[in-house]
Amino acid sequence: MKNDINRQWLIADRPVGRMLQESDFKYQEVPLGEPKENEVVLKTLTLSFDPAQKGWMENISDYVAPTQIGDLMRGSGIAQVVESKSAKFKEGDIVSGQLGWEEFPVVSADTVNGVPDGVPPTATLGVLGTTGLTAYFGLLHVGRPKAGDMLVVSGAAGATGSVVGQIGKIAGCKVVGIAGGKEKCDWLTSELGFDGAIDYKNDNVAERLKEVCPDGINVFYDNVGGPVLNDCLGHIAMKARVVICGGISRHEFGETKGPNNYFNVVFRRSTIEGFILLDYMAQFPQAGQRLAEWVRDGKIKSKEDVQEGFENAPKTLMRLFEGKNFGKQLLKIADQS
Amino acid sequence: MKNDINRQWLIADRPVGRMLQESDFKYQEVPLGEPKENEVVLKTLTLSFDPAQKGWMENISDYVAPTQIGDLMRGSGIAQVVESKSAKFKEGDIVSGQLGWEEFPVVSADTVNGVPDGVPPTATLGVLGTTGLTAYFGLLHVGRPKAGDMLVVSGAAGATGSVVGQIGKIAGCKVVGIAGGKEKCDWLTSELGFDGAIDYKNDNVAERLKEVCPDGINVFYDNVGGPVLNDCLGHIAMKARVVICGGISRHEFGETKGPNNYFNVVFRRSTIEGFILLDYMAQFPQAGQRLAEWVRDGKIKSKEDVQEGFENAPKTLMRLFEGKNFGKQLLKIADQS
Repeated sequence: MKNDINRQWLIADRPVGRMLQESDFKYQEVPLGEPKENEVVLKTLTLSFDPAQKGWMENISDYVAPTQIGDLMRGSGIAQVVESKSAKFKEGDIVSGQLGWEEFPVVSADTVNGVPDGVPPTATLGVLGTTGLTAYFGLLHVGRPKAGDMLVVSGAAGATGSVVGQIGKIAGCKVVGIAGGKEKCDWLTSELGFDGAIDYKNDNVAERLKEVCPDGINVFYDNVGGPVLNDCLGHIAMKARVVICGGISRHEFGETKGPNNYFNVVFRRSTIEGFILLDYMAQFPQAGQRLAEWVRDGKIKSKEDVQEGFENAPKTLMRLFEGKNFGKQLLKIADQS
Repeated sequence: MKNDINRQWLIADRPVGRMLQESDFKYQEVPLGEPKENEVVLKTLTLSFDPAQKGWMENISDYVAPTQIGDLMRGSGIAQVVESKSAKFKEGDIVSGQLGWEEFPVVSADTVNGVPDGVPPTATLGVLGTTGLTAYFGLLHVGRPKAGDMLVVSGAAGATGSVVGQIGKIAGCKVVGIAGGKEKCDWLTSELGFDGAIDYKNDNVAERLKEVCPDGINVFYDNVGGPVLNDCLGHIAMKARVVICGGISRHEFGETKGPNNYFNVVFRRSTIEGFILLDYMAQFPQAGQRLAEWVRDGKIKSKEDVQEGFENAPKTLMRLFEGKNFGKQLLKIADQS
């Protein structure tokens, strides 16, 4: 079933060097699009939210095509096919892909994929999607932990961080997560099997690191940047690997603030390294298979933070930068028919 | 010939988070020491100065034993044996090693070494000593340049930086040096064969980098830190390697300032890595042999900045942090007899 109108959120401003605000987006209603040959009309069921989306709006993430003011806001999600001019999909099929922030995308059938059987469709947006793959390659290929290593991960209760920690446990590491608030920290230790957790909102991170990692950090996987990155750099062990995955705290500042303790990489003979998931695309199938096995075996658990209502898309993205999300941030737009 | 008294400079204060000052050192005169079995009495000819010496005073360089207020200031140099109770050396021999800031060290014969024939003794303090070895291992083992790479080195007219750039040329790189002042920059391009030079005192470094490295920096060897490191991080190419060797600009600030552009390692899939020369000790002989060949073949030229007079030791160390030295900083204390 499809409506007569299609609701959309467009990019209205570039949130460069500042926090996101609702006025960075413009709401509009347009007539429903007509599918051409090989296109499908989709009904968006769930949208997925990642910090990288702010970078796309800022045009600082030069590994994706630039955005323009007035463009439909980009975002991935799960949708149901409501009309098909493609042999690849029929009405009622569930697909995932880059949909954009609109209720009824009309897209080429080549740009979306079916979802695997036996897992909830939204898993392909999180643990079996880019966040899980980011955790997998960033930790195993860049961080290269060895059994027995002390792994510390920031943003540990987030979609990527929680998977990083759990893969760390599979790899035989001791794992400490840094997250905001007692509830998230408790979840890390009691549900996910982390060996320790540090509450950056209430603990002195530098002091707690000395307590929970007395021999220093062997691998630090950073989703956050800012003071947390700096404190962890100040506590690295010899030959440590620091994986820069995200820097969500960057967005709080007018200017990104570099880590004053960077010079500790000399004293500790250590490495700070960045990566982009797209570079590992050739190895996605193998990684996806492993992640699916670990999920099936209960070795990787995930949590979804599901908000509701298309009108709330901007607010839902802002939750990520306010540290409000607890698990993979999703927005439910419509029920599957 | 030896005097009756021995002049010394002691550590009087720790220059933590600030520039060095003369009051960080205390001058004293003491009676000449008497050698015990296996010891030698030396006459210091030349002292060698390195930025790391300030770190030793601060006790932040934890790869060397801590210093105490009142200790003899540490420093390496060239000396002549004036009295020997060791079979290893006889009166008149020239040696190099950790002497300390005093005119007549009395040391175990095991702590100093003879100097090689055919090169000036002071070469073992610079291009054939720790600065040359630091350049060699930091560039070739950490930076890992490939022929055709764009190598940028900061502190390029200094003892380490000038050797880094010349080894870069041997390795087939395009080399750009960053140094302070026209005289140093001219020397890099006209004498050392650098392909370009940036004068950080008079040029806009970020703008000049775009001109001289239009395709970005493949290897950045940093002796400086601060704004220069930040500008170079902002201009790295894909898969760049940033070698952190020194951070002399750190000492200008009350607090070390981290590079705001660190997050570019993500967009450029790059690495920031630190190292300590001592970790490569097993490979010193081979590296020393190669460096000596390159010096003999005229492929590596070096420049010495020779100040004079034992009383000027503190001022001479301060020159390094004021960017005054042009080449390897030495202090001539006495003539060889």
